[in-house]
Amino acid sequence: MSSLRFTKMQGLGNDFVVVDGVRQQVALDAATLRRLGDRHFGVGFDQLLLVETSSTPGIDFRYRIFNADGSEVEQCGNGARCFARFVVDQGLTDKTEIAVETARGVIYPRLEAGGDVTVDMGAPRFIPADIPFVAEADAVVHQLDVGGETVGITVVSMGNPHAVQVVSDVNNGAVERFGAAIENHPRFPARVNAGFMQVLARDEIALRVHERGAGETLACGTGACAAVVAGIRRGLLDATVRVHTRGGGLSISWAGEGRPVLMTGPAVTVFDGVITL
Amino acid sequence: MSSLRFTKMQGLGNDFVVVDGVRQQVALDAATLRRLGDRHFGVGFDQLLLVETSSTPGIDFRYRIFNADGSEVEQCGNGARCFARFVVDQGLTDKTEIAVETARGVIYPRLEAGGDVTVDMGAPRFIPADIPFVAEADAVVHQLDVGGETVGITVVSMGNPHAVQVVSDVNNGAVERFGAAIENHPRFPARVNAGFMQVLARDEIALRVHERGAGETLACGTGACAAVVAGIRRGLLDATVRVHTRGGGLSISWAGEGRPVLMTGPAVTVFDGVITL
Repeated sequence: MSSLRFTKMQGLGNDFVVVDGVRQQVALDAATLRRLGDRHFGVGFDQLLLVETSSTPGIDFRYRIFNADGSEVEQCGNGARCFARFVVDQGLTDKTEIAVETARGVIYPRLEAGGDVTVDMGAPRFIPADIPFVAEADAVVHQLDVGGETVGITVVSMGNPHAVQVVSDVNNGAVERFGAAIENHPRFPARVNAGFMQVLARDEIALRVHERGAGETLACGTGACAAVVAGIRRGLLDATVRVHTRGGGLSISWAGEGRPVLMTGPAVTVFDGVITL
Repeated sequence: MSSLRFTKMQGLGNDFVVVDGVRQQVALDAATLRRLGDRHFGVGFDQLLLVETSSTPGIDFRYRIFNADGSEVEQCGNGARCFARFVVDQGLTDKTEIAVETARGVIYPRLEAGGDVTVDMGAPRFIPADIPFVAEADAVVHQLDVGGETVGITVVSMGNPHAVQVVSDVNNGAVERFGAAIENHPRFPARVNAGFMQVLARDEIALRVHERGAGETLACGTGACAAVVAGIRRGLLDATVRVHTRGGGLSISWAGEGRPVLMTGPAVTVFDGVITL
């Protein structure tokens, strides 16, 4: 029996148990992750973030992301923001730009003056085979036949596949009518995240995302990136855009082809806890 | 901004945030309850238990039960067990039988040697109009027509309505086939909790319950009481029965007509937390 201290955090409703593996000895096997992840018998989380020291010179931390089933996740934008907020709030660093090793490589989340955190989400890709998406040629807008109706989608990979469409009103029923049909459309062999974007201004959109394997979620970080990139490619949006999701607001910046997408958003501490394992 | 200390507990997977209102000043309005109850933006619970001192002579405590929507609940067997475990573990009392005022009256939960807690769940009632159930006469087994099939049910009120049937195997699909149809059957004007009991021995049953308004749950305390009472009335069970539910095991005792049902089961501390409100 040992005590594990943890902090519950959330970013746009995507919630995390964050564990300080720097100042306490932590052994998290799959059974422990399942137990911690259960919302009735344990603490409950979408993902658990384990913060560790890095042995690489010039790198401040290493962090790993786990699902409640014990599997490890490569990347999570909302999680990266919570990680950065956590190491600063806990006094593990006094830097505001933090170099951290993840399963996907080194990232440099940055704390903004207002408390938000900016994360580099990598460069978007558009080549249909990279999505993957079955298409004759590259195009900004592809016509997709969905149950007899034709919708215009822009395909974007942010490491995961997105199909973004512009709607006149995010609450007009398109998410419910098209979400699952696009996710499972035969032209997306690995399925796809379906985004529905309402352009409010050249620097402001409302967004809802039907996520692959999860249905509609409160907020999808890569979905927000994909939507803004799609809107910029279509000539509808400027380089920095405020994105309103059901879970809260984000700012997304993209300087164009080949450049990374920067996501700025909240990371909130919910409570501190101690559990006996 | 103030800090609220709380303890997360569970009984058979029914989970509670338990708040010590004896040693800390607590003000829980509906907005705070909603926030605490959210499993992504707050702590998350099925119910919140607020423990307070009682001003009534001879009564040790008062406790109140709240849903996450801010509404107050009269009774909860799993919650009463967690309440008793909490006041002892936190050193608020050294008694093993505790007198506590609830919205429904005074109850006397008792800590057993092994760590389980026994709660008096009140006397069952069988008169059809008390359930309420539409029937010509009182009977131990009523025939109910459910979508063209006839099932034999025993109706029991444990403060809330139950329709219990005996099945050869709780995993034979009856819960899925009949649960919602019985819940909403026109002969139950206030709807009903539908129990499916497999008799393993005269002192052991397996039970699954389709709860009114909630669908199948991990464990239903009043459902376990109703099932054992129904089995005793039908001559299938002895006076003390071990009940296996998907959330864990309970013992139910009933000495017969007019007597209260005693429920003995686990109450488990999951973690301790502090949240800033």
